Amino acid sequence: MNETTVTSGIARLATADADFAERLDHLLAWEGVSDAEVQARVAEILAAVKARGDAAVVEATNRFDRLAASGMQELILTAPRLRQAYDGLPEAQREALAQAAERIRLYHERQKPESWHYTEADGTVLGQQVAPLDRAGIYVPGGKAAYPSSVLMNAIPAHVAGVREIIMVVPTPDGILNELVLAAAHLAGVDRVFTIGGAQAVGALAYGTESVPRVDKIVGPGNIYVATAKRAVFGQVGIDMIAGPSEILVVSDGGTDPEWLAMDLFSQAEHDEDAQAILVSWDTEHLAAVEAAIERLLPTLEREAIVRESLARRGALIACRDRAEAVSLINRIAPEHLELSVANPEGWLPEVRHAGAIFMGRHTAEALGDYCAGPNHVLPTSGTARFSSPLGVYDFQKRSSIIHCSAEGASQLGRVASVLARGESLTAHARSAEYRIRD
Amino acid sequence: MNETTVTSGIARLATADADFAERLDHLLAWEGVSDAEVQARVAEILAAVKARGDAAVVEATNRFDRLAASGMQELILTAPRLRQAYDGLPEAQREALAQAAERIRLYHERQKPESWHYTEADGTVLGQQVAPLDRAGIYVPGGKAAYPSSVLMNAIPAHVAGVREIIMVVPTPDGILNELVLAAAHLAGVDRVFTIGGAQAVGALAYGTESVPRVDKIVGPGNIYVATAKRAVFGQVGIDMIAGPSEILVVSDGGTDPEWLAMDLFSQAEHDEDAQAILVSWDTEHLAAVEAAIERLLPTLEREAIVRESLARRGALIACRDRAEAVSLINRIAPEHLELSVANPEGWLPEVRHAGAIFMGRHTAEALGDYCAGPNHVLPTSGTARFSSPLGVYDFQKRSSIIHCSAEGASQLGRVASVLARGESLTAHARSAEYRIRD
Repeated sequence: MNETTVTSGIARLATADADFAERLDHLLAWEGVSDAEVQARVAEILAAVKARGDAAVVEATNRFDRLAASGMQELILTAPRLRQAYDGLPEAQREALAQAAERIRLYHERQKPESWHYTEADGTVLGQQVAPLDRAGIYVPGGKAAYPSSVLMNAIPAHVAGVREIIMVVPTPDGILNELVLAAAHLAGVDRVFTIGGAQAVGALAYGTESVPRVDKIVGPGNIYVATAKRAVFGQVGIDMIAGPSEILVVSDGGTDPEWLAMDLFSQAEHDEDAQAILVSWDTEHLAAVEAAIERLLPTLEREAIVRESLARRGALIACRDRAEAVSLINRIAPEHLELSVANPEGWLPEVRHAGAIFMGRHTAEALGDYCAGPNHVLPTSGTARFSSPLGVYDFQKRSSIIHCSAEGASQLGRVASVLARGESLTAHARSAEYRIRD
Repeated sequence: MNETTVTSGIARLATADADFAERLDHLLAWEGVSDAEVQARVAEILAAVKARGDAAVVEATNRFDRLAASGMQELILTAPRLRQAYDGLPEAQREALAQAAERIRLYHERQKPESWHYTEADGTVLGQQVAPLDRAGIYVPGGKAAYPSSVLMNAIPAHVAGVREIIMVVPTPDGILNELVLAAAHLAGVDRVFTIGGAQAVGALAYGTESVPRVDKIVGPGNIYVATAKRAVFGQVGIDMIAGPSEILVVSDGGTDPEWLAMDLFSQAEHDEDAQAILVSWDTEHLAAVEAAIERLLPTLEREAIVRESLARRGALIACRDRAEAVSLINRIAPEHLELSVANPEGWLPEVRHAGAIFMGRHTAEALGDYCAGPNHVLPTSGTARFSSPLGVYDFQKRSSIIHCSAEGASQLGRVASVLARGESLTAHARSAEYRIRD
């Protein structure tokens, strides 16, 4: 290192510090709320799309993406165009994309639940029927965050679920198409692509227009306008979680190469300036070694500026006292990505209550999960792993309860329902049940 | 019937009518959106609860529920109080409630998913770990809509899921406690009850206060203030669907007693003036017979005024041409409750794509499902069965992906990830993966 090297600025915390809890809260705080101005602009766009359909979508698209489309037909890509993008890729990329798609498909096949039912002694049948959505909408960001891997991760679960039609929207600012994204759409079973984005694309998918079919659920990441629009149409259609910045928590027992860990942290931090990379260890010499590796490797990164900014703003090296404290931190943080870079990571699993995805052992870099291990890379952020799950096949299916009472069963249940309905003063309920009681 | 009897005013539609699609759209339309004034009031209450905790909750509770509590400690009911409510019930009610709770528990036990994993040829392990939420909040409306059955239906799935602590909130306007509701809370495994409601209760559960613990998910129905508050805190905590008015679609082949069907429609309509009850049949004589039964039975109902209002505003008798049209109507409407009052209802199941719960055969009155058949009565309304499911054990659990690469697996996957990461210009991702490649 020469003398002009600036330090990474990554925060150093210790659980033993008096102000640790407060500093941790501050570090983790993230307010993804949209302000009143954004909400008003989004409401205006949604109302326009609802009222004027295609015309409003085209106007907004021309304006925000700097296009000059004369109608929606210029903003549609069909299956042959997607296939052409796939066929046109360099072989190494085509191969890698196909391998990733196949592994993702295989993993998600395991998530498919079965319909079930059971028959009671009196012949009454109870059960649950699982069915796919008719139509799903996949939002794919344009510009710098247009990731083919995200197309695979959002569309393949829908395809495995048996969704009848998968519609993708992707904005093309200044008309620039990403061939890798289109190729991924082909592999993932996307039926049609509209090159639209923003709140106008969310509105088109939620309400339907002359050209864009109304979908049943909208998934996929987007900027604050997209997130605000998704929140607004929630209920009209289903949506996935509203994502915050991406984050990783790495727990190391001191036995992993410090350079590997530094690069694992970088791989998170390079996403954007709000991304969060945290390392926890009870081995303080090891923490110092990782910090030295961070300093050493930072200048070698293509996205050095973003990584520096992200580490300085939201990164941390946390010294804890022991393994038990590390477990507490995991469950406090409920990280999107948890890397257990420890010996015997299986031993930790029963104690990990909240984490989107758990990367176990020294060899399982989080980046492997981002692309091709198989499990989904769309994961709950900002502590929402407390109550939500990776995107999965279950997000593209719904369940219906099945109740088929035998005459005897209806008679028995009718007596119970009658008492309870009368207790709630719902006497038509009671009488409806009582008609089925046999003397 | 004497001459002063007014007719029910229920709409008569036929699929053969030229304007049928339009009339049906109009009938089904439901805008549950809250206006700007409600949103502003809710935002104010939520901000106050976030900033001032218990004090703000007590103030709002005193104001809206006309109480004079001096602190939160007066608004807490503990387990012994719930047990006392249960012990104090008349025996018939206690028995009926216990039977209902047991059947609901048994059904929901079947919904429990298993964690799973599989090992690939090179030793890499992939899987999914299922864990319950730490803490769930159950919102129970007070006043006229305080239903003990709703307490069972919301809390038992949480209990079966293994949720560590179940917090219930129920407003007590003018200090009136509903003993049946408390007894149901005892049976369902609720740990603590706060007698608070409205947006202030939602805020307390979402942010936590000195007395009310922060929960991970809030479920349960409420008025427009509760629904607006739930939408606002979504992301901070998980929420269930935002419910619209309750509805039923009954399909009859003409073989069910018209009085039974009339009462089944009434049992839906008696909920409130916005509830929707629709009967579909291709047997026009049968439709006329049901209409006559409606006229005949209406004056015998305790909640006649509500039923009349609901039937006149949102009810319908629809004549279709045949079974195929009935199936199309089911999937168009995606009803919360579907009653298949037909011979061989099993034959219909494969074609029913969207319905919250399906009540099969002439004996399975919807009211049986409301109370004690076993499946949940919290169901997707207003066509949201297109993309959402009955409340279930799965709403109180979340999944974590498990990825444990062997050294060989990490090496293989590292090559694929490297190509894809470089295709996305995420070179720290690529290098993190490449460290794990073995020569």
